[in-house]
Amino acid sequence: MKIKNFIKKLKFNENRLIPVILQDYKNNEVLMMAYMNNKALEMTLKTNLAHFWSRSRKELWLKGRSSGHVQKVKKMYFDCDRDCLLIKIEQVGAACHNGYRSCFYTGFDKRGKEKIVGKKVFDPNEVYRKS
Amino acid sequence: MKIKNFIKKLKFNENRLIPVILQDYKNNEVLMMAYMNNKALEMTLKTNLAHFWSRSRKELWLKGRSSGHVQKVKKMYFDCDRDCLLIKIEQVGAACHNGYRSCFYTGFDKRGKEKIVGKKVFDPNEVYRKS
Repeated sequence: MKIKNFIKKLKFNENRLIPVILQDYKNNEVLMMAYMNNKALEMTLKTNLAHFWSRSRKELWLKGRSSGHVQKVKKMYFDCDRDCLLIKIEQVGAACHNGYRSCFYTGFDKRGKEKIVGKKVFDPNEVYRKS
Repeated sequence: MKIKNFIKKLKFNENRLIPVILQDYKNNEVLMMAYMNNKALEMTLKTNLAHFWSRSRKELWLKGRSSGHVQKVKKMYFDCDRDCLLIKIEQVGAACHNGYRSCFYTGFDKRGKEKIVGKKVFDPNEVYRKS
């Protein structure tokens, strides 16, 4: 992919970020949403591993750097407004730092009460204890 | 669902918006990403039809108002940071105003060239000609 040409044609928001939806390439489960800046997208395309811009830590972030739970890029799409990316990935381990496969692990029961519906696949205390 | 209590616990961004991922409730295809403000979310929960805040038109927007391509809410989830919603919907017609089932209808071919990969299901000139 001609990286720079592609990046130029995307619309980044007022904070120079673009939202990215990460989806499991096998079962289409939505795993997380995060933001990339120009550099994070360039690194993602170069390495085939998802990089983001951490808005809280204000730094470039290789997803899985601490946990090993990297996201291998399989396919990439962009939307009709060119202001959102959809990336199908192979998720090593789990996407959520709380130990769930997907960050969207909370839904609602029939009475409208919040309910954890996701699958916990690791213990965060175990995975992040060294960091 | 106790609407106001739920909305209070979400994190809206600096523009008082929350990004929302719309996913086909049957085959898990990601159809679009849009933004809700407090009112749009309230209307979505009350009517069970997706409402958004249009950033370009600066108005509350019932998805499908012109086209009839409404999105019926089936299930709703939020992420670990409470700053993104995932809604599984029954999509009437198609999500994209360009006539594709999903707004993410552009991907890349093997050589990295942009390629339309989505399925066109209606002719926008036909659907929107009255508006």
